[in-house]
Amino acid sequence: MGELKKVLILGAGYGGIVTAVHLQKQLGLNEADVTLVNNNDYHYLTTQLHEPAAGTLHHDKTRVSIDSLIDSNKIRFVQGHVTAIRPDEQRVSLENREDELEYDYLVIGLGSAPATFGIKGLLEHSMGIRNIDSVRMIRQHIEYMFSRYRNEPEREDYLTVVVGGAGFTGIEFVGELADRIPQLCKEYDIPREKVRLVNIEAAPSALPGFDKELVDYAVSTLEKKGVEFLIGTPIKECHENGVIVGDGEEIKAATVIWTGGVTGNPLVEEAGFEVQRGRVPVDEYLRAPNYDNVFVIGDSSLMFNDEGRPYPPTAQMATQQGQHLARNLVALIRDGQLTPFKFETKGTVASLGKGEAIGIVGKRKLYGWTAAQMKKLIDLRYLFIIGGLPLVLRKGKFF
Amino acid sequence: MGELKKVLILGAGYGGIVTAVHLQKQLGLNEADVTLVNNNDYHYLTTQLHEPAAGTLHHDKTRVSIDSLIDSNKIRFVQGHVTAIRPDEQRVSLENREDELEYDYLVIGLGSAPATFGIKGLLEHSMGIRNIDSVRMIRQHIEYMFSRYRNEPEREDYLTVVVGGAGFTGIEFVGELADRIPQLCKEYDIPREKVRLVNIEAAPSALPGFDKELVDYAVSTLEKKGVEFLIGTPIKECHENGVIVGDGEEIKAATVIWTGGVTGNPLVEEAGFEVQRGRVPVDEYLRAPNYDNVFVIGDSSLMFNDEGRPYPPTAQMATQQGQHLARNLVALIRDGQLTPFKFETKGTVASLGKGEAIGIVGKRKLYGWTAAQMKKLIDLRYLFIIGGLPLVLRKGKFF
Ligand SMILES: Cc1cc2nc3c(=O)[nH]c(=O)nc-3n(C[C@H](O)[C@H](O)[C@H](O)COP(=O)(O)OP(=O)(O)OC[C@H]3O[C@@H](n4cnc5c(N)ncnc54)[C@H](O)[C@@H]3O)c2cc1C
Ligand SMILES: Cc1cc2nc3c(=O)[nH]c(=O)nc-3n(C[C@H](O)[C@H](O)[C@H](O)COP(=O)(O)OP(=O)(O)OC[C@H]3O[C@@H](n4cnc5c(N)ncnc54)[C@H](O)[C@@H]3O)c2cc1C
Repeated sequence: MGELKKVLILGAGYGGIVTAVHLQKQLGLNEADVTLVNNNDYHYLTTQLHEPAAGTLHHDKTRVSIDSLIDSNKIRFVQGHVTAIRPDEQRVSLENREDELEYDYLVIGLGSAPATFGIKGLLEHSMGIRNIDSVRMIRQHIEYMFSRYRNEPEREDYLTVVVGGAGFTGIEFVGELADRIPQLCKEYDIPREKVRLVNIEAAPSALPGFDKELVDYAVSTLEKKGVEFLIGTPIKECHENGVIVGDGEEIKAATVIWTGGVTGNPLVEEAGFEVQRGRVPVDEYLRAPNYDNVFVIGDSSLMFNDEGRPYPPTAQMATQQGQHLARNLVALIRDGQLTPFKFETKGTVASLGKGEAIGIVGKRKLYGWTAAQMKKLIDLRYLFIIGGLPLVLRKGKFF
Repeated sequence: MGELKKVLILGAGYGGIVTAVHLQKQLGLNEADVTLVNNNDYHYLTTQLHEPAAGTLHHDKTRVSIDSLIDSNKIRFVQGHVTAIRPDEQRVSLENREDELEYDYLVIGLGSAPATFGIKGLLEHSMGIRNIDSVRMIRQHIEYMFSRYRNEPEREDYLTVVVGGAGFTGIEFVGELADRIPQLCKEYDIPREKVRLVNIEAAPSALPGFDKELVDYAVSTLEKKGVEFLIGTPIKECHENGVIVGDGEEIKAATVIWTGGVTGNPLVEEAGFEVQRGRVPVDEYLRAPNYDNVFVIGDSSLMFNDEGRPYPPTAQMATQQGQHLARNLVALIRDGQLTPFKFETKGTVASLGKGEAIGIVGKRKLYGWTAAQMKKLIDLRYLFIIGGLPLVLRKGKFF
């Protein structure tokens, strides 16, 4: 296998796993030497993590073992934590491993890191909906605080959850948590009116940039479920006992979840790639500036639309990039031609908790039950892309 | 109803609820003015609380609504927190209530408080298996620590649980928790060998005073389940990060559960009753010294056996006292004769987790499955005493 081209894929998230799955479909046996590296032995469905974070769905429903997706005859899976990328030497280091991985072609799909916009204390005192480990902790943190309340009834802050950011992640999370709160109240003998769920957003509107009619529908649906909104209100500081907002007001809260934004994985900047706000601006072939053999996809990459505005980082984008990149990698391996990538938006749907959602598909606005069905279809479609019908049947949420 | 005798029962624990249930069976309508006061609107099965504390049984299985036990035509139930007893004025105060409760006969069944033997930091940094609120918190605390571990893998103390005291409560709790740990490891992706469950006892043996053969059986059964014992090792200090034991060694642990002993409810000493180590030494009619109309039962009372040694506080004792006291109260109301109380031990059984127990019943030693069956029978028998067959069917654990 000495002369085979070495393809190294870092990260088995949306971008990485889709690249890998499509590569193994298109490549013959022994046509290339492909390695996939990921810190966990499973792929998780980031777009659904608001549910296990709120405790409305078990996290096992949102992860898939990589073994079950990867054909080990075509791709070698290495479980490991990437600590450094050295593009000039074409090498990658892993934690607790002496030897380094080499490559001819590198795919970086290492996802995102929280963007804190310099808010003091945010990283130390808030939690994020990032991965299986973090959402399990969020679920347990909230429940632990509820369990403590009746032992220290003066601590009403145990029953306050602040969610920073009313973008898609924040909105989807408060929708789920609002559904969960009545169950928590029952479990811990707590009157519902003692509980506060406060969603704070600095921009002048929830879901900034989204259709106003749909935003109004989302906000009023969530308010009916008991969510309080503080819109146009920046969080100034986060500390052990809560947050301080715009006008200096303190909101005491034992739980603060930050969903206010993401930047690229810091490893890409550390590797010396050119970045803009932590993300690598890639060309039409998804290549990093100055490195023709390095491809960056998903949340660590940056692309601009025809008006020159950056696309938001989404699973939709990462998935399309992965599909396209797999074709281009096959072309490179077979000395063929690269084709340019173009993002095609299929629409956007955001869940608002059980049976409720909003979205735009094509030019159509969707609300309520219809939108919620569409959301399920999107999730099922993704499972189909990476694991076919068997995975749809195993992990799909049909009801 | 002015001339009816006022009977006031404080606490709906083993002693109080059994007194109340037997009183209502024996008294006719309008024969006395009976009030039962309890801080919760439910009775809980203290002897089973090690299970919800470990998370092996839902706490709802260990509580019964007082409504379902009390006949409101015969007994008035008042939910409230007793803050002071004034035996000279024959009055009792409740939290957040202006008016006070008056009585002709008072029954004090307010249970126990933790005995800390002056160990520094114990009250602040440990939790106790005391009531529904505290065991729910223990369950969640342990689980929360497990959920945090993979987010901060250097914090191995998150996976260490120290149980102070290897008396009945401590032993029963570690037995349950040892059963639960494999589930927790699975839920949080943690290797079992990372978890430590350490039971620390100052006395030279676990289950001090109990039959040596049974103690050895218990210890080896629990060791096989992964429990570490530190026997003859006093806890010197408890702090935020764990405990310091006998020789100055520190055991880092994010969870410390103290089961090392109980004393009477501090309200009895505050009321001015004579106490010995916080408990009221009662006469053969269960009366407090100098107050012929005040009866103290259960963990706040103190009785001596024929050798002059104090009986340990048990549910068995509280239940028998309650049954006997109900008869004596009826006698008082009907101007009859008081009969002296005598404790009859029915034996002792301690659970060691699922399907395992030890015990002495009569002169017979019981082990393993047989003892575990006996434990279930004892629990069922108690449910029968307070709620008859319907309660047995509703809350009984048969398997
Ligand atoms: C709650 C929530 C809801 C969302 N909903 C939607 C939605 O409805 N639609 C939508 O389009 N987008 C949605 N998104 C955004 C979407 O999830 C992301 O844009 C998408 O996951 C990005 O894919 P990715 O491949 O770049 O990174 P990820 O999917 O985050 O994958 C990165 C992978 O890299 C691994 N990794 C990271 N660091 C290392 C390392 N050092 N070494 C080894 N492995 C590493 C991670 O374990 C992970 O497997 C949502 C996001 C959240 C948080
Ligand atoms: C885990 C565990 C296992 C045990 N196993 C056994 C066993 O197998 N066999 C056995 O015989 N014994 C056992 N015991 C001991 C037994 O549970 C106690 O001895 C028994 O509960 C004492 O009964 P009591 O009525 O005195 O108090 P409790 O049952 O504790 O009841 C006290 C009641 O008073 C209420 N109360 C307290 N303070 C106030 C207030 N200020 N105002 C209003 N209400 C108040 C409480 O809510 C409670 O309802 C065990 C104990 C534990 C913790």
